[in-house]
Amino acid sequence: MKRIVLLRHGESLWNKENRFTGWTDVDLSEKGVEEACKAGDALREAGFSFEAAYTSYLKRAVKTLNCVLDRLDKDWIPVEKTWRLNEKHYGMLQGLNKSETAVQYGEEQVHIWRRSYDVAPAPVGKDDPRNPGMDIRYAGVPDSELPRTESLKDTIGRVMPYWKCIIFPALMYKDSLLVVAHGNSLRGIIKHLKGISDTDISNLNLPTAVPYVFEFDDRLVLVKDYYLGNPEEIRKRAEAVAKQGMAKKIKICLSSRCFFLSFNY
Amino acid sequence: MKRIVLLRHGESLWNKENRFTGWTDVDLSEKGVEEACKAGDALREAGFSFEAAYTSYLKRAVKTLNCVLDRLDKDWIPVEKTWRLNEKHYGMLQGLNKSETAVQYGEEQVHIWRRSYDVAPAPVGKDDPRNPGMDIRYAGVPDSELPRTESLKDTIGRVMPYWKCIIFPALMYKDSLLVVAHGNSLRGIIKHLKGISDTDISNLNLPTAVPYVFEFDDRLVLVKDYYLGNPEEIRKRAEAVAKQGMAKKIKICLSSRCFFLSFNY
Repeated sequence: MKRIVLLRHGESLWNKENRFTGWTDVDLSEKGVEEACKAGDALREAGFSFEAAYTSYLKRAVKTLNCVLDRLDKDWIPVEKTWRLNEKHYGMLQGLNKSETAVQYGEEQVHIWRRSYDVAPAPVGKDDPRNPGMDIRYAGVPDSELPRTESLKDTIGRVMPYWKCIIFPALMYKDSLLVVAHGNSLRGIIKHLKGISDTDISNLNLPTAVPYVFEFDDRLVLVKDYYLGNPEEIRKRAEAVAKQGMAKKIKICLSSRCFFLSFNY
Repeated sequence: MKRIVLLRHGESLWNKENRFTGWTDVDLSEKGVEEACKAGDALREAGFSFEAAYTSYLKRAVKTLNCVLDRLDKDWIPVEKTWRLNEKHYGMLQGLNKSETAVQYGEEQVHIWRRSYDVAPAPVGKDDPRNPGMDIRYAGVPDSELPRTESLKDTIGRVMPYWKCIIFPALMYKDSLLVVAHGNSLRGIIKHLKGISDTDISNLNLPTAVPYVFEFDDRLVLVKDYYLGNPEEIRKRAEAVAKQGMAKKIKICLSSRCFFLSFNY
């Protein structure tokens, strides 16, 4: 049996401030560090072990991974970092307070940006510091690959080559992999693995720092997926994530497997 | 101008307990974490930046590196971990209290193990948990490469291929590299870079968590090397390291470049 565990980073400082984060490199909050450590403890207690790990270029993911590996006594395993696992680039929304956004762009437009699969927020300008082309960490990435805004479809489009060429094939010669990333980059992987439609994927919300386990047979066919942890605890975590948004109506559909929340950020 | 910075990990828990550590995966002490953060701050304040980093399979080095990268806002750079940068394997001495060792093996024998370049402590048995062949993290290393004890010469012998094939050539296409490792594995690199003799290298002691900077010209010829930080502070740090040992006589020869302490561990 082979396993890949997906983990969304712990709470960041901008979650608290209710701001669109995207590619902005915001640190974990104190609560976020605690969440990361708890995820590591849960994995250790359930007997999980990993041979390699993957994460984004953003410190809220890298540091969540570091906490988890330390709790697992696996500080030594190889870690590969990639911009392709970064969060969705929120374009001009990045850094804005979510409640201010509706005032600036109008409720209807913001609603489209939030809910649609393939409409991106307005892009940042070339000289905008939020343009990844201005950041030395992306100097090794061809400019044509770097987004100045993204729809969920765009995000998934740049995550998938990495998933298909790097992470998933590694499961041929390793038994257990860990991927620590972001709500939207992980959506791409989950959409692919579970065959979720373009319409439904926007409604899938991942609670922060709850391990989502995918089990495969030896031919790498998916046989089982589940969240690791106490269902009631996970439900609360998912609710907390939902409340971070501006959503006026939040609908929670709780199944035994995962949580679907409308209005996701 | 090209740079490689060598950094010995911060104080570990066994430093406090005065035990031989070697390949035992002991965590940083609280003081060790502070030392690591300070090293990161010193590098940031001096304007250092790194494009890639290398460390060992041991958490006291990995976690020192994580602290430094976080202080530099460089959590995202690639990090390569290798057993070849591990501390010297202390064989049967590993885990023993340093003052108890003299009682068990005799002062004279322990003196030879400590001071000689090419005499190793007695090896651990094949079934001893201190044999790296018993540890899953070394499963990818051919058994013939894994030590059950090491002299300083042995340690340097397994560090050098990694230095020559991986780290040093990376300086051809990167400007600034960071290596976070251990007293003895770093001795190997410094011996090679500075042409220190077999006799003298045992007397070179690195203070914990003080960045040691090596500058090269574009043809990768070494042009300058220096410790980063306040000389008085570094002198105290070196003294503190020396005091961790059992040495009855400690001789400190302070030059403008580095510190030579007799009786190193």
